[in-house]
Amino acid sequence: MSNSIKLAILGLGTVGTGVIHLINDNLDELKRRCGRDIIITEVGTRRQRDDIDTNIMQNSDLMAIAASDNVDIVIEVIGGTTLAKDVIMQAIQHGKHVVTANKALLAEHGNEIFAYAEANNVHVAYEAAVAGGIPIIKVMREALAANKIDWLAGIINGTGNFIMTEMRDKGRPFADVLVEAQELGYAEADPTFDVEGIDAAHKLALLASIAFGVPLQFDSVYCEGITGITLQDVSYAEELGYRIKHLGFAVRRDGNGDSDAAGIELRVHPTLIPQDALLANVNGVKNAVLVNSHPLGQTLYCGDGAGAGATASAVMADVMDLVRVLGSKDNNNQSHSDQKNHGHHVPHLAFIPEQLSDTPILRAEQMITGYYLRVHAYDSPGVLADITRILSDAGINIDAILQKPAHKVGQVPVIILTLPVVESQMNLAIEKIEKLDTITDKVVRIRLDELA
Amino acid sequence: MSNSIKLAILGLGTVGTGVIHLINDNLDELKRRCGRDIIITEVGTRRQRDDIDTNIMQNSDLMAIAASDNVDIVIEVIGGTTLAKDVIMQAIQHGKHVVTANKALLAEHGNEIFAYAEANNVHVAYEAAVAGGIPIIKVMREALAANKIDWLAGIINGTGNFIMTEMRDKGRPFADVLVEAQELGYAEADPTFDVEGIDAAHKLALLASIAFGVPLQFDSVYCEGITGITLQDVSYAEELGYRIKHLGFAVRRDGNGDSDAAGIELRVHPTLIPQDALLANVNGVKNAVLVNSHPLGQTLYCGDGAGAGATASAVMADVMDLVRVLGSKDNNNQSHSDQKNHGHHVPHLAFIPEQLSDTPILRAEQMITGYYLRVHAYDSPGVLADITRILSDAGINIDAILQKPAHKVGQVPVIILTLPVVESQMNLAIEKIEKLDTITDKVVRIRLDELA
Repeated sequence: MSNSIKLAILGLGTVGTGVIHLINDNLDELKRRCGRDIIITEVGTRRQRDDIDTNIMQNSDLMAIAASDNVDIVIEVIGGTTLAKDVIMQAIQHGKHVVTANKALLAEHGNEIFAYAEANNVHVAYEAAVAGGIPIIKVMREALAANKIDWLAGIINGTGNFIMTEMRDKGRPFADVLVEAQELGYAEADPTFDVEGIDAAHKLALLASIAFGVPLQFDSVYCEGITGITLQDVSYAEELGYRIKHLGFAVRRDGNGDSDAAGIELRVHPTLIPQDALLANVNGVKNAVLVNSHPLGQTLYCGDGAGAGATASAVMADVMDLVRVLGSKDNNNQSHSDQKNHGHHVPHLAFIPEQLSDTPILRAEQMITGYYLRVHAYDSPGVLADITRILSDAGINIDAILQKPAHKVGQVPVIILTLPVVESQMNLAIEKIEKLDTITDKVVRIRLDELA
Repeated sequence: MSNSIKLAILGLGTVGTGVIHLINDNLDELKRRCGRDIIITEVGTRRQRDDIDTNIMQNSDLMAIAASDNVDIVIEVIGGTTLAKDVIMQAIQHGKHVVTANKALLAEHGNEIFAYAEANNVHVAYEAAVAGGIPIIKVMREALAANKIDWLAGIINGTGNFIMTEMRDKGRPFADVLVEAQELGYAEADPTFDVEGIDAAHKLALLASIAFGVPLQFDSVYCEGITGITLQDVSYAEELGYRIKHLGFAVRRDGNGDSDAAGIELRVHPTLIPQDALLANVNGVKNAVLVNSHPLGQTLYCGDGAGAGATASAVMADVMDLVRVLGSKDNNNQSHSDQKNHGHHVPHLAFIPEQLSDTPILRAEQMITGYYLRVHAYDSPGVLADITRILSDAGINIDAILQKPAHKVGQVPVIILTLPVVESQMNLAIEKIEKLDTITDKVVRIRLDELA
């Protein structure tokens, strides 16, 4: 077809290969939906591959592909933040639309990349960068476009969710499950990005910007991993009707008092959530995002957050959107630059660039969450009274207490669930509790959210 | 603003009023997202209302509003299939885009309406028609556009889900809960559309068309309500690890044998699904749709399926999409007809009209599902052997059997779960079972799906 769309795929790893397979498998379906042919004209690969159709040009010079006249849309799936950035900027400069799955790159350099794309009148699409095959970018930018988003909470790292699920279901400790996750290919050899929450923080930065219309601020995301979660806490949480999940939260705080500051909370941390919440029942490597908006209320989006098929689905959804932007058959005779000006343009960060706001990102001590506290004390009279008095003096409301039988001689773990409190207040209270003579260990604290 | 978008709202019931509230509440947010002003210029209402802004023209002549030069987009929320159709056709004829929440109208007359819209180069958007605030139309038409959809299963009637949830949670019989649902305003005075599955069938017809690219075929939807579900069956299902939900299914069957026909199953019926499936844990009036597609796999979308806020959210998401189609600020000086030709156009039924396929909708007896059977027999030796032999002779595989103690003197309910089987085979087997001397009642059958 003369009006075919020409794709370049940069990178032939899991995702790049997945995109090729998807196009091969579903080509008829794609054509039935968009009325145009979609062909891969060039692929960027370090070494020549003999499993690639001979009609497709293979090239190890990615910068050349990104500038090629034989390409309409550049799909960047090499990862990393150096070469990937160069080829994307090159593609933009040469008037190509870009589709990328690169969360780290966008979270860290997205403001610059999107501004350059706007200036060059092209679009950088990134559905695959957050929550894999779940169309959360499209949903938040378009489907929820009439809503004011209050907060979102997401399981946005499949590896972490797999580990938390196995710990709970099988009573296996963190370290054991991590090894299995690595064997299964869910976790990298260096699992830091996953288990320390950095990967989730990248995605959260993107979600927060499109939720609230603020520039990308990855550096301001508060980030806590799951390496410190013990089976003991998993089990106490269950006993109290909660489940521990590793979640990313983006919360808009309107502020209504001295210690209650206005701004946005961006935080990734283990969190107790009610067992009967759907989000608590999203297991294994699945991802899910819960969005609370006005007037819609809560909606949940769940699916595979990684893997060749899910990621390729998201990459190609972006391509299909761009195909529609590039115009229907009828528009095909128009000039290239005319086509790019056409119609539907969803702003990169959901809000038009000049309307991005400078709402501050709150510091950790300004954040407001409920807490699960595990306090170890000598089993002496008055210890519970001391602890509850300290909490009460700090204005912290207790929602539940669980005092377990001593598991070390003379030591009693006391589990306390609190209502939401400003973190600085909780810091002060914990400091005081730890100074009590009867307290034997550091207080373990995990955040808690009712998702209400 | 000179480039403001002018809306007419036809009908000031719950949804129409909800749209006005949404625009009032979120106007700043809407402008920040689309860069244009959105104003309501006219409303269609039978009697003059004094709670409407005086800048908005009130008119009881809906046909006049649909033709008004002072309107870009007509929002039809009067419901019904007569006047609603007339005003939509009128709006299309006068070059207006239309947004509607009218599932019954589209399910029954959508082919005609969409064809007329295509011919007049306008769009009829209908996100609010299916699953309320859940953006399932956008998701399936756009986000899953690169996938081949294999099947979907949806809780797409909130009233029915509320009733099923209450029956299970509180052990209350159907009739009791129905009365409460009516008191709460969830169910109409005449609840037929909800409890007999007709409302769900309307929505399913729409979902199936955009899933598989077939014309709307509401008349071919197999439809079974929840009026026959007893607490006994709810309880047996739970005991066996399943939950009964009222679901709509659209399934693509490739066909691979004599009794295994190729085509599409469209069916609404009570269904046993695994208790631990997320869909089984979508409770109360919530809706949810589970979509299984290749290569993405399963994704789930959950939220409020009705109510002023959720429906207004969906209506206004369509408006925001159309605002983008109508062009950005820069395009505002172009002529009206030019604007409509612009860029992004998602086909009404997801596939371009000339590519809709004539894949047949299967008849009930051709459908393939698992079954829950409740058989009442005299407690005489050999009865179980008789039943299982009949099933086995019909090629029906038994997955589980539960034989309960007699609850009437001498009668024993036997619960049998089967693997998927062609319905005609099951009909024959049940006919034979019911002819056994030892069988005392009609066999109760409820479909079962593992959602795998």
